[in-house]
Amino acid sequence: MERALIIGRFQPIHNGHMEMIRRAAKRYELIIAIGSPLKSHTVDNPFTGGERYEMILRALRDEGIEAHIIPVPDIEYNGVWASHVMSLCPPFDVVLSNNPLTIELFSPYKRVMETSMFSRKEYSGKEIRRRMIEGEPWEELVPNAVAEYIKEIGGDERISYLSRTDEYV
Amino acid sequence: MERALIIGRFQPIHNGHMEMIRRAAKRYELIIAIGSPLKSHTVDNPFTGGERYEMILRALRDEGIEAHIIPVPDIEYNGVWASHVMSLCPPFDVVLSNNPLTIELFSPYKRVMETSMFSRKEYSGKEIRRRMIEGEPWEELVPNAVAEYIKEIGGDERISYLSRTDEYV
Amino acid sequence: MERALIIGRFQPIHNGHMEMIRRAAKRYELIIAIGSPLKSHTVDNPFTGGERYEMILRALRDEGIEAHIIPVPDIEYNGVWASHVMSLCPPFDVVLSNNPLTIELFSPYKRVMETSMFSRKEYSGKEIRRRMIEGEPWEELVPNAVAEYIKEIGGDERISYLSRTDEYV
Amino acid sequence: MERALIIGRFQPIHNGHMEMIRRAAKRYELIIAIGSPLKSHTVDNPFTGGERYEMILRALRDEGIEAHIIPVPDIEYNGVWASHVMSLCPPFDVVLSNNPLTIELFSPYKRVMETSMFSRKEYSGKEIRRRMIEGEPWEELVPNAVAEYIKEIGGDERISYLSRTDEYV
Amino acid sequence: MERALIIGRFQPIHNGHMEMIRRAAKRYELIIAIGSPLKSHTVDNPFTGGERYEMILRALRDEGIEAHIIPVPDIEYNGVWASHVMSLCPPFDVVLSNNPLTIELFSPYKRVMETSMFSRKEYSGKEIRRRMIEGEPWEELVPNAVAEYIKEIGGDERISYLSRTDEYV
Amino acid sequence: MERALIIGRFQPIHNGHMEMIRRAAKRYELIIAIGSPLKSHTVDNPFTGGERYEMILRALRDEGIEAHIIPVPDIEYNGVWASHVMSLCPPFDVVLSNNPLTIELFSPYKRVMETSMFSRKEYSGKEIRRRMIEGEPWEELVPNAVAEYIKEIGGDERISYLSRTDEYV
Repeated sequence: MERALIIGRFQPIHNGHMEMIRRAAKRYELIIAIGSPLKSHTVDNPFTGGERYEMILRALRDEGIEAHIIPVPDIEYNGVWASHVMSLCPPFDVVLSNNPLTIELFSPYKRVMETSMFSRKEYSGKEIRRRMIEGEPWEELVPNAVAEYIKEIGGDERISYLSRTDEYV
Repeated sequence: MERALIIGRFQPIHNGHMEMIRRAAKRYELIIAIGSPLKSHTVDNPFTGGERYEMILRALRDEGIEAHIIPVPDIEYNGVWASHVMSLCPPFDVVLSNNPLTIELFSPYKRVMETSMFSRKEYSGKEIRRRMIEGEPWEELVPNAVAEYIKEIGGDERISYLSRTDEYV
Repeated sequence: MERALIIGRFQPIHNGHMEMIRRAAKRYELIIAIGSPLKSHTVDNPFTGGERYEMILRALRDEGIEAHIIPVPDIEYNGVWASHVMSLCPPFDVVLSNNPLTIELFSPYKRVMETSMFSRKEYSGKEIRRRMIEGEPWEELVPNAVAEYIKEIGGDERISYLSRTDEYV
Repeated sequence: MERALIIGRFQPIHNGHMEMIRRAAKRYELIIAIGSPLKSHTVDNPFTGGERYEMILRALRDEGIEAHIIPVPDIEYNGVWASHVMSLCPPFDVVLSNNPLTIELFSPYKRVMETSMFSRKEYSGKEIRRRMIEGEPWEELVPNAVAEYIKEIGGDERISYLSRTDEYV
Repeated sequence: MERALIIGRFQPIHNGHMEMIRRAAKRYELIIAIGSPLKSHTVDNPFTGGERYEMILRALRDEGIEAHIIPVPDIEYNGVWASHVMSLCPPFDVVLSNNPLTIELFSPYKRVMETSMFSRKEYSGKEIRRRMIEGEPWEELVPNAVAEYIKEIGGDERISYLSRTDEYV
Repeated sequence: MERALIIGRFQPIHNGHMEMIRRAAKRYELIIAIGSPLKSHTVDNPFTGGERYEMILRALRDEGIEAHIIPVPDIEYNGVWASHVMSLCPPFDVVLSNNPLTIELFSPYKRVMETSMFSRKEYSGKEIRRRMIEGEPWEELVPNAVAEYIKEIGGDERISYLSRTDEYV
């Protein structure tokens, strides 16, 4: 069975991600790489790498999907980024992505398969984070286990609180 | 006497900061931590860490307030930021802040006291920098010693000049 | 079941590591953290993070042991290192280690259990690397799957070749 | 003959740059420093440092201009930036620039000559990148050799493709 | 009164340092810069920047000496190091040092005064750390307040413990 | 004509380097990459990147050899190092090296030609630096223009002075 790499920030992992993972898991041994794992506690990156690892773990367990979850720290250097991912992750055969930068950077090194289909608006981390900030319901957009974990750690309140930037600086 | 930490960028230190420091100095031995001390010469961060140290020093001397002034370099990693500040500064008991991120990050480790009262619009670094750029009077918003020092080093002209970004790039 | 963290560089994973992991796996859900995963191609750190991930994966599979394998990049800042590991890894309850620095740094935050027993000389990464360089047999010191993988990628020849530093610099 | 430093990001080098270089080359031995050489594959910084080196090389060769082309990596620390450039480049006598930050930072150390004249709108990297993204003709704004090279490496398609950010994150 | 900079790692501050500081304090307003403040928990750098700040503070208080204590993070770039210190510290007039590298790097920018006299062997951080590791008496080599503080935080035991590197890696 | 990359630290460039460059220049358009260009003022890396650029420039000019001289900053990450060099330098066809690490890291990406012949002991940077420190004659080991330049900037005295580390720390 070939190995495929999926990379995302997963802030948080949501139903759109899950749909892609579910399909991919049928054909590939999966590496799920967590991007920007050292970023947290901001409006765009509310959850730590460890919290995101836990969310993915629980979401996969609930569906009986196995995958290698690997945090891949930012390197801020696109010219070497593909080499960086390949040096840090175990060998893989194909990259699954719908992100132009990921596709562009991996193309010289790996087979890349574009996965553009699930881009429906509501299944986006940005929309989920917006709803958390506004106090709107967001739970339906993520797997149950993820919604529960986020509440358990107070994640929705955290992002809402952090968004209240005071101008006193 | 307990030790309290106040952290800010102080670009520049202004009357709002001073009011908070004045009150805090009555109850605590103060650590004034200068954030982003390696940033300078931009519109948001016009003054060097050393210049800001000097401004704070002069402002405190004028009022007879003692404090430990400590530059705390950015670490760009919120998940360890509180540990970073605690590793770099001498031991302290409480954090005084009105910044949600600071409060969020320190809460697991230290007593945090919210100081939200002085957030009046005019007492903000952003407003002072805006006035410097526009050539409007800004001196009344900062302690006298600070206004003098900024003029002495040509700081108001510097930020005004730097704001003239030329599109030729 | 509690979660335990084991951290090492695993250059390469060897029988001493395996013995510790085997015992720990009976009592804990394991996180195996790979230290210095961005270091490779030196005499002390011959294998990439990805190669070490693969070795650990194969060694565990052969014995039916499950674990979360997580590369933890160096941060070169001991004062925040424990926070760094805790931010990057999913939550865990206990740290298993026989390394004084690891024990010292985690003690303020986590239950630490010292695992000093398997320190027999021959089961050390250093000894294995020395044998690879000298062309002595090293295969018996690591799990079979690891020995095979190292040969597959030419890892023993790599370290031997890299050790031939030429003084022409 | 005195040595002059010109520093820019050259994303890409264009006719405005060339006009400045042509004039300067008559009076000075030139150092052309490439800023942000480790940035690439973004809308603002589409080309790698090496690609920009090659473009400058070809543009200069076509006109018979000699210069030292030197990539100068970002240091993200304005307070030491001038020292950084002076430490990395061979000695020089004067800085030619129309960028306020460059002028401000070098003034304490070097003779700086302001070169404000060629700032015509169309001769800007930003405009050229915008045209590439929009599919409008951009070739006339850069030297022929540069236009050819960019097409050879598919650079205009690259930036256009990268600009199609998908919100699925 | 002129301002003088003294820079050291102060691992820990000892009687040799104090003698130099005592003399200097008579002629100068002192800046005591703590080098490598982000290093700790190693045999060469056992104490955190914050612990060293506290030690210096207590040692100075006991003698009624005032000084600005400023942690100066490493920059690992000698070519810009003097600029770095000058950017981070408030303005100063002279550097007091007996370290060839410090003298060499500051000479182009500042008046440097060599202070070679107190180099007696026993007054060295290295000797003190060696004694702590070996369990020999070290207290007489540092100010009383420093000896007390080190014991209070278990600093001598820490370095001794950390020195017991286990070869199991 | 093919392009060849030669990479070294050139601390300083010496007759061994020159012999290799002379031969290579007959067959290739040369890129001479300066490694560790941000290191200076130590016994192993006495000269700044800029000073080394100047030395190489003068040595080449004296012999009428043309080459692209490019400082390549360290990245401390062997797994991506070849990509880093290729991203920063203009395209090249072959790597000339006698350094096992360079050969190992470039082999997956580029044709590598081993240049082992000039490793005579006296033509080594280490020997030259040793002689400078000991005050022995070193000038004969480097091109005339380089010897002159080093004396002009006091480079031999600098390294000798820096080697006098005082134990007072």
